[in-house]
Amino acid sequence: MTSRTTDSASGGTPAADRSAEPAAGAPRHGGAEPAPGAVLDPALAARLKRGADGLFPAIAQQYDTGEVLMLGWMDDEALHRTLTTGRCTYWSRSRQEYWVKGDTSGHVQHVKSVALDCDGDTVLVRVDQVGAACHTGDRTCFDADVLPLGR
Amino acid sequence: MTSRTTDSASGGTPAADRSAEPAAGAPRHGGAEPAPGAVLDPALAARLKRGADGLFPAIAQQYDTGEVLMLGWMDDEALHRTLTTGRCTYWSRSRQEYWVKGDTSGHVQHVKSVALDCDGDTVLVRVDQVGAACHTGDRTCFDADVLPLGR
Repeated sequence: MTSRTTDSASGGTPAADRSAEPAAGAPRHGGAEPAPGAVLDPALAARLKRGADGLFPAIAQQYDTGEVLMLGWMDDEALHRTLTTGRCTYWSRSRQEYWVKGDTSGHVQHVKSVALDCDGDTVLVRVDQVGAACHTGDRTCFDADVLPLGR
Repeated sequence: MTSRTTDSASGGTPAADRSAEPAAGAPRHGGAEPAPGAVLDPALAARLKRGADGLFPAIAQQYDTGEVLMLGWMDDEALHRTLTTGRCTYWSRSRQEYWVKGDTSGHVQHVKSVALDCDGDTVLVRVDQVGAACHTGDRTCFDADVLPLGR
């Protein structure tokens, strides 16, 4: 597997040799397509607060251990797919397309529960993570870079 | 305590009767001021990726139980204060000022560790949360609104 066929956590503009998201030619949405024409429940959509780009952050947490695995971004459709397909689905800011976690890497996130926060601007998705959440091979995207305190 | 003297989790534009952040007249930064002129380590600043507004998301997690408490927003200075004062400090998007969690509510977050994610655009702050993280009185900002799956 080349670095362009891995997937990972957050948006941004990663360097080519550690691409955070699937390559353009990679299969997407396999087995996790929503019903045609399906849209997010309007009552829920009315409660969401989105950034200027229409996105809101989604925290993925391993449902049983409590590990914070990664943070991704969703729009209404990504949230709808996450709620209805059982597979955690993000919006890739760098590639400007939907990204079903694990479609290229096999490191699927099976959705256990989804909660909206008190202000309606962040979701917490509890998942069962297959393998590594991070494109580096680490279990979580926060394993490698602990910052020094006190300076 | 009135609703305008509570504090809470995320930015956005909360309704007046459930303000998510401290009121303008509330004491701020008490006991958690950085050294005058202190700035974030330039080597760390060079690794951060920020949104168009200069901010990046910060996930607060209870260090021992693993609970995801809330998501706030930081800029370089907020991260610097969080790393150096021992108190989790955010940037309030609604009030456009620094916000030391717990200064008005007493619901302080004592910083245990801070990690940057693989893409440099999100931080995970492990804290010891005093009392409720959420301005509603809930322990976390994700307790009250679990979304139905499958639709």
